[in-house]
Amino acid sequence: MLSNITATKNLLEEYKQNFDLELNKYLQKKVVEYRKISSFGAKFTKDLAEFTLRGGKRFRPALIYYAYKLFGGKNDKEVLKLSMFIEFIQSFLLIHDDIMDRSSLRRGGPTVHKVYERFSDEKNFNDDKHFGITMGILSGDLACQMAYEIISDSNFPVKTKNALSKLVSDEVSKVIFGQIHDILLNYDFPVGYKESDITKVHYYKTATYTFRLPLFAGAILAGAKPADLENLEKYAMPCGIAFQIRDDILGVFGKEEETGKETMGDLIEGKKTLLVTQAYKKATANQKELLNKYLGKKNLKISEAHEVRQIFKETKSLDYSKKACFSNVKKAKEGLYKISKKNKTAFNFLEGIADYMIVRDF
Amino acid sequence: MLSNITATKNLLEEYKQNFDLELNKYLQKKVVEYRKISSFGAKFTKDLAEFTLRGGKRFRPALIYYAYKLFGGKNDKEVLKLSMFIEFIQSFLLIHDDIMDRSSLRRGGPTVHKVYERFSDEKNFNDDKHFGITMGILSGDLACQMAYEIISDSNFPVKTKNALSKLVSDEVSKVIFGQIHDILLNYDFPVGYKESDITKVHYYKTATYTFRLPLFAGAILAGAKPADLENLEKYAMPCGIAFQIRDDILGVFGKEEETGKETMGDLIEGKKTLLVTQAYKKATANQKELLNKYLGKKNLKISEAHEVRQIFKETKSLDYSKKACFSNVKKAKEGLYKISKKNKTAFNFLEGIADYMIVRDF
Repeated sequence: MLSNITATKNLLEEYKQNFDLELNKYLQKKVVEYRKISSFGAKFTKDLAEFTLRGGKRFRPALIYYAYKLFGGKNDKEVLKLSMFIEFIQSFLLIHDDIMDRSSLRRGGPTVHKVYERFSDEKNFNDDKHFGITMGILSGDLACQMAYEIISDSNFPVKTKNALSKLVSDEVSKVIFGQIHDILLNYDFPVGYKESDITKVHYYKTATYTFRLPLFAGAILAGAKPADLENLEKYAMPCGIAFQIRDDILGVFGKEEETGKETMGDLIEGKKTLLVTQAYKKATANQKELLNKYLGKKNLKISEAHEVRQIFKETKSLDYSKKACFSNVKKAKEGLYKISKKNKTAFNFLEGIADYMIVRDF
Repeated sequence: MLSNITATKNLLEEYKQNFDLELNKYLQKKVVEYRKISSFGAKFTKDLAEFTLRGGKRFRPALIYYAYKLFGGKNDKEVLKLSMFIEFIQSFLLIHDDIMDRSSLRRGGPTVHKVYERFSDEKNFNDDKHFGITMGILSGDLACQMAYEIISDSNFPVKTKNALSKLVSDEVSKVIFGQIHDILLNYDFPVGYKESDITKVHYYKTATYTFRLPLFAGAILAGAKPADLENLEKYAMPCGIAFQIRDDILGVFGKEEETGKETMGDLIEGKKTLLVTQAYKKATANQKELLNKYLGKKNLKISEAHEVRQIFKETKSLDYSKKACFSNVKKAKEGLYKISKKNKTAFNFLEGIADYMIVRDF
């Protein structure tokens, strides 16, 4: 399994290098385009570019590419360019989510609304926070338009582009409902939610857009049949659920420099995760009291966060999440094995991705 | 001119009736679709539906339809359905704008973020305002996806749909920059802006999306040539600028029950308009002092708003705006006369729309 993951990580790194070159080129063009409107237009575009370029492993565009290869796609250059759209969907959703979650840190730098909150502060505008929110909303909105523009501008057949545009609006709508339920869960604290509510969020919010959307996009570009998509979904959804469970583990136990997010953030926010539901199920009265006190506490101390982590360990809630992650990965691989391998590299990559969900630390 | 306007108003009303039936059908289908996710999903969709159905004269969809007819389009039923997309772009932009402008009233009812602020209050959630903003962002985001979905789902040729999708992402991006500059103007009060800054906002924010986007959409659907679009633009842009100047007049002098917006709103907000720049240019020292004091004053009294209106009249700033509106309408009509009339009704409608910009009271 480990050699498998190493190979996948190398392919991911390789894709990222090519991808970032392309993305950089596109964004430079956009800055030039919007400089025509005004110098602030150029600044605004640069800030969005900086945020988008700062981002991660290019995991989702790589999924587009390898799903495309898996179903026999040949036009590597065009699919590389097109796969940029998903990073703008990602920027759009993250920038808006960060406003909703009041996050100040993302991808090892300030969130977009924070950038403008500071800008506003320097300019002595009234109400920095509202200016930050305003510009964050607009930045996300622009990123969303860029995603659709990349699709309609690409050199794939118009029929394919139309199917892809339809896929994006369908899936992003579902992601929005996933986010709505995530928000509701977090406002409804500490009562009135169950493991199934959390699974619903994982399904709609993460699995849909981190896995099904990019994988389906690649498959559609390669001309995959509906039956192929059905099998691909059996890989995509459990993979996505495993991804989110791992994400929630990292949100509490991860190291800040690796995740680029505040490791205390999920606890301070009082985020509802499997870790939390399961800990409540198994906690002693004393532990429950501590969870009630600490989860969602705005000025949580490092020592208190440590106590919560201990409870997650002692109640075996951490183990429970790890097992759930593992069993979803197993299911995902069974799904993958049903798809005929037209391309062995792509198949291995996707198998490696599934395994990676168990051990990833970003 | 008046009989012309009456005919246009009748055609607009007729289109609205057919359109609202179609829109209602679509939205009911959407509520059923999202009820599958959850009962809150259905509520969320209903709130967006209610906001969208509440809206206005269906001015922009009618522009799509009549531009389509002007260039010889024949498929009335399909263009009616497709023209719904612009009302979702409209909902998307208005819902987000209302958050940015902190508006509580729109189309004679509460703005979307206000609806959720109250919902949150009833549920005793923490921080009603932030919950309102959060749900407003998501509601606008969903409306945007619906717009793209309507395009990709329609029965026009894929090539046409792709061109339309490209047009929407292009134009909406420009609208976003228009909004950015509108916001900047309003934060930079009371110095550092000129009439040309205001014109830039009118150009990018209003003229682009209220006129050029729907008119180009209709023309593209009918297979219009690039040269046709060039002429159409000469009609669209001045018409849009006239629309915005009239809007700003109504924002100060209009009656609340007719505009569905707070008539004090623009003054309280300290909105930068031609009315304001021109008044400052011509004002006495005493009048300038009053403008500085009242424009942007949060708890502005009715009598103070009246004083500002008097200054706009006394400085002939109101006349100046009315003249600017008039000369743009004249320019727009000259643009229209360059287009060959394939359809007389459509031509008369568009001419009537231009004239209407001078006298409209909604």
